[in-house]
Amino acid sequence: MALQTILFDFTLDAEKTATSSQRQDVARVVRNELEHVFSQLELAYSMESLDGGYFAVLHENKETIITCRIFQQGLLTINVEYYLADGKEPLMSFDTGKRVENAIAKKLNALWGQKLPTLKRGDVARYFPSSDERIIEYDIDTLVYEARSPFQKIQIMHSKTLGNMLILDELQNIAESDLIYTETLMGRGIENYEGKEICILGGGDGALLYELLKEKPKHVVMLEIDELVMQACNKYLNTICGDVLEKRKTEQYEIIVGDCVEYMKKFIADGRKFDYVFGDLTDIPISGAPIGECWDFIRTIFEHSFKLLKPDGKFLTHGNGTSCLESLQLFEDQLRLLKPKVKFTTSKAFVPSFMEEWLFYQVTFA
Amino acid sequence: MALQTILFDFTLDAEKTATSSQRQDVARVVRNELEHVFSQLELAYSMESLDGGYFAVLHENKETIITCRIFQQGLLTINVEYYLADGKEPLMSFDTGKRVENAIAKKLNALWGQKLPTLKRGDVARYFPSSDERIIEYDIDTLVYEARSPFQKIQIMHSKTLGNMLILDELQNIAESDLIYTETLMGRGIENYEGKEICILGGGDGALLYELLKEKPKHVVMLEIDELVMQACNKYLNTICGDVLEKRKTEQYEIIVGDCVEYMKKFIADGRKFDYVFGDLTDIPISGAPIGECWDFIRTIFEHSFKLLKPDGKFLTHGNGTSCLESLQLFEDQLRLLKPKVKFTTSKAFVPSFMEEWLFYQVTFA
Repeated sequence: MALQTILFDFTLDAEKTATSSQRQDVARVVRNELEHVFSQLELAYSMESLDGGYFAVLHENKETIITCRIFQQGLLTINVEYYLADGKEPLMSFDTGKRVENAIAKKLNALWGQKLPTLKRGDVARYFPSSDERIIEYDIDTLVYEARSPFQKIQIMHSKTLGNMLILDELQNIAESDLIYTETLMGRGIENYEGKEICILGGGDGALLYELLKEKPKHVVMLEIDELVMQACNKYLNTICGDVLEKRKTEQYEIIVGDCVEYMKKFIADGRKFDYVFGDLTDIPISGAPIGECWDFIRTIFEHSFKLLKPDGKFLTHGNGTSCLESLQLFEDQLRLLKPKVKFTTSKAFVPSFMEEWLFYQVTFA
Repeated sequence: MALQTILFDFTLDAEKTATSSQRQDVARVVRNELEHVFSQLELAYSMESLDGGYFAVLHENKETIITCRIFQQGLLTINVEYYLADGKEPLMSFDTGKRVENAIAKKLNALWGQKLPTLKRGDVARYFPSSDERIIEYDIDTLVYEARSPFQKIQIMHSKTLGNMLILDELQNIAESDLIYTETLMGRGIENYEGKEICILGGGDGALLYELLKEKPKHVVMLEIDELVMQACNKYLNTICGDVLEKRKTEQYEIIVGDCVEYMKKFIADGRKFDYVFGDLTDIPISGAPIGECWDFIRTIFEHSFKLLKPDGKFLTHGNGTSCLESLQLFEDQLRLLKPKVKFTTSKAFVPSFMEEWLFYQVTFA
């Protein structure tokens, strides 16, 4: 089942919505144009506000409900909503909506107008935010897997064009389409992993481990807290993780299930050192440890990582969407707080399942 | 100015919304949870429908207006709308909205729930559809240019991450981020253009001409109907078209402003032949000629193009989003109708400013 929500907005000359009777005129035009599509419209309710606003509810058989709102600033919005049963044709198609938009804009001499693509609600999660909270609709057709681990909600959803996607706590993480993500994170073709010792923090989807093993490192240890994420990815994300999550220990690698901060402390105490440490954790700390705010957690990870690095070692990690300037700045501020001092370079790639360009960091001792 | 629209939906056990008093209970829970954010809520209006539906309007000072709707099938939707003045903090942030969603879902034992990222209306066009009519929000911050030519509405908008974008009749065409589009269309690294004679149909943004000239063809003729598109792109899309739109005729190329079908007929009459013909037109015919339906137009273009090709010539064109299987099928049906027979290969690329994977065709005589 699905609800169709179709949103219109128009900017009118504010002088044309200044009086109550002008607003009634605008509402009449809106109703007339909508009646070309919904012929049985009735006015259920309307109210005026003291500051020059108007709000009305129209409906057709109480099935299609339309709200119309006029703001003193000349903004006019129309929301059309109706339930669409499976297999039925929409009452208002993309083109019909566009025609209604154009007709209203013309009749009202609108300075500006738009009709948003129809929103579909109540069936499957298809809307996810970009890093800067823009709405993006994915072509999700199936919820393949869903479970709640002690740490997070884990979902695998299938996108028609991106393949299976890993969704953690309702945020997109990686999809079968995203080899570029892993290759940019690891700097394929730039870094030489042959014979190197590597530590991955997080990386539960297995993609980074899978790609690193192709480069013949001496050994990789991966510290992942969530057993269930690995089981889900092993089953549904084979194209990006191969069979590396099948075994937990081989001659080439070891996957340790646990809190990476605890294991890093242990490695530090043991004097263990790596050529590369990868920060491949989710943005938001999921371990229950009382580590304070998000940025404190990130700095803790940095501090421990650098204690694990050989003098010429590198810490490689993902940053954020390139549009999130403020967040990237805060991230770099944390790097600048580190002692001993570090320096960094960045690289970027457009990640298909994020639908945006992402920034990656390569950090070394200064 | 901007309106904030925040949409929630939940799927409830249909047995819990079966009676009028159950629906009242659900509405009460919704109201209680919303009152944590909007403390002065009042019920303005409510109605029940015979088929077990419920609809209510709540408001705070007539400024924030909230509609709540319950469907017999157990679907619950909530729409929150308020006007946000420039520079003010949203009344309901991303995280607050998420908390409200979680609280309502928990109290109602929802089978499913989601909160869509906040929609912003009434200021700048930021929502564009994918080829399969999914909503995508762009990080548009400026309308750089707007004009109406005899053929179409032309806009250049600036996206923070994609650069300047060409928008024709409110559909995204190409952006500064989209070299991959042009390179995939022309098969860079696969096709050899050196010393070749080329005809571009459309291509008003200049990107294809600019990239082709780097490959040292003998001559390129470009047939573009819209002078104003070229002026806009020459001014605002330099990074992808260089200075090729500055001049209309050099030793290497000629840009003819006119209806490509008319000029193709002329070239055919003159016996002129090309090694490559590019179909780089907008999807929807913009010339006023009475050529019938969209597919008839596309077939007309195909037919004329093949009359212009040398026996070993190639027709290269864009198709559609790879998710538009039906439309791609119709496109290929048109190719199959051609006489003499043709054969084709395809290639694809994820085009940043389309936010989706696009299919391209390479067509030769069978």
